[in-house]
Amino acid sequence: MIRSGMGEARAIELIARIARRRSREIVKSIGDDAALFRDGLVVTTDAYLEDVHFDRSYLDLSAIGARAMCGTLSDIAAMCAKPTAVFVSLMAPKGFRGRDIRELYRGMDAICGLFGAEIAGGDIISAPQLGLALTALGRTRTPRLRSGARPGDDVYVTGHCALAETGRLALKNGLNPKKYGNAIDRHVCPIPRIREALKLVPAIHGLIDTSDGLSTDAGHIATESAVRLVIDAERLPIHDETRQLCAELKLDLAHFVASSGEDYELLFTSTNGGLETQNSKLGTAIMCIGRVEEGNGVWLLSGGKTRRLAPTGYDHLKAELLPRA
Amino acid sequence: MIRSGMGEARAIELIARIARRRSREIVKSIGDDAALFRDGLVVTTDAYLEDVHFDRSYLDLSAIGARAMCGTLSDIAAMCAKPTAVFVSLMAPKGFRGRDIRELYRGMDAICGLFGAEIAGGDIISAPQLGLALTALGRTRTPRLRSGARPGDDVYVTGHCALAETGRLALKNGLNPKKYGNAIDRHVCPIPRIREALKLVPAIHGLIDTSDGLSTDAGHIATESAVRLVIDAERLPIHDETRQLCAELKLDLAHFVASSGEDYELLFTSTNGGLETQNSKLGTAIMCIGRVEEGNGVWLLSGGKTRRLAPTGYDHLKAELLPRA
Repeated sequence: MIRSGMGEARAIELIARIARRRSREIVKSIGDDAALFRDGLVVTTDAYLEDVHFDRSYLDLSAIGARAMCGTLSDIAAMCAKPTAVFVSLMAPKGFRGRDIRELYRGMDAICGLFGAEIAGGDIISAPQLGLALTALGRTRTPRLRSGARPGDDVYVTGHCALAETGRLALKNGLNPKKYGNAIDRHVCPIPRIREALKLVPAIHGLIDTSDGLSTDAGHIATESAVRLVIDAERLPIHDETRQLCAELKLDLAHFVASSGEDYELLFTSTNGGLETQNSKLGTAIMCIGRVEEGNGVWLLSGGKTRRLAPTGYDHLKAELLPRA
Repeated sequence: MIRSGMGEARAIELIARIARRRSREIVKSIGDDAALFRDGLVVTTDAYLEDVHFDRSYLDLSAIGARAMCGTLSDIAAMCAKPTAVFVSLMAPKGFRGRDIRELYRGMDAICGLFGAEIAGGDIISAPQLGLALTALGRTRTPRLRSGARPGDDVYVTGHCALAETGRLALKNGLNPKKYGNAIDRHVCPIPRIREALKLVPAIHGLIDTSDGLSTDAGHIATESAVRLVIDAERLPIHDETRQLCAELKLDLAHFVASSGEDYELLFTSTNGGLETQNSKLGTAIMCIGRVEEGNGVWLLSGGKTRRLAPTGYDHLKAELLPRA
């Protein structure tokens, strides 16, 4: 029986129990960012629905397509793989026209083009609202999993924490876009960190992309690697625009940074020191934000004290789907 | 600009023009039953939505899952490949519970189990109505395409034409289920013809699965192979239950057989004579229903006369999506 508040994790656990393992070709299936095959094939699926995952009031179809593609390819980056092909199921609402299809697919194709990947097939069905289900394939000879973190590793993150959510809230609340340019860019087009992942792969142990919020995503590494992650609050890369937004909207900065999702940055662990200096070569900031220890869970070091950080990121099912009573 | 009545074919054409080819790994992409990679990997995607593709009033969740899986794996059969893994995006309506997830995924997993395939990943999002987007992967060393038909070939079909639609209409119209047992079975659980495809592959030239209706599917082979298909009306395998349904519901039998979709049978061409006798070995009927000639289009031979057969199968977009004005 399902209890109130069953979340995505529990649903995935249920499915993992029903879906029997049958193929020796598949090394890793349900439970990581993507499935991994013995020959280095990597496959991931994501679905996006109007009003749940995107808002047509401030994103045009090209941006919606691009953003969905970025999110899906980010799971390929999270396995240190290079994307090859994407399959697109389009749920098209009544009155969706040829120019709409063109706009949407141009947005998706442009992101594929950055990485030499292509849209290689799909399906189109009519539906009450716009939706996309994207399945991306990639290739890697050096896969990295959530389970690769080891005590003694440092914890790193690319880019800025919660910058994408800063942009979303700036747009949604009609704030002055000039004051939130970087944040809006990261929300509208969160280019997946594929180049960074392929460059950093020799140094990476455990890896995930930050899609559900730092506390939740760090929790996945902790659980899958059976370690504890200690995050140093003072070292979190927080963009000025995020500080500004929290001040303007009176949000708690610490909570906002720990729980905001869809950054699509890399969160990884490594024993290599000084990875921050790779910054200049990659053009993307890399910050050491903590360390891996024996134990479990995610812990936040702040003002000299360490406290346990609960996963406060977005849980799709818990938030919207299942009855609370 | 889109004109009135733009259908699926035109939408696919549009997408094929936008989606640039970039990967030398991909031999065949948009425009066949599945994409084909150089190493024999085959990938296909299908989406299913409540009230459009299935009706929960007479199908339980296990049957809905099984039927969707059959439909998707049929595209793998249509490339003469063996399925390995399926990725499932679930659009779950409000109040969808653990036991619902269990039922739905058990239905899907059972079909995978018949062929040694597995559900290897996916996504779950909340949505206003139940939906599934399935991406199936398969492997083949001997792919067959729609474009393989050659003048001089015979045209074959497995099973019975329009049997699945017979079952659907029997259920929908509340007819006596005892009189439509075979038809209802084929509608509810159209086991994909994977074993048949793998067995027949040495003989097969051009191949498609019948999902959109015989006239439309035969048209795809004709177009892609640049040939004409002449179908002999008298040789079409029509089940007694289909004759009975057309009598009971006063439907035109010839039109019904030419245009009813979702049979998920194999329609193929071959120079090998006498394939019908394979029947006993496979347990599935195989019927020679016509021949391939120089020319174009699909033609129906009936009462000594040959007339052109327009594609009258189900066009999803034309029927439901795009404005007619």
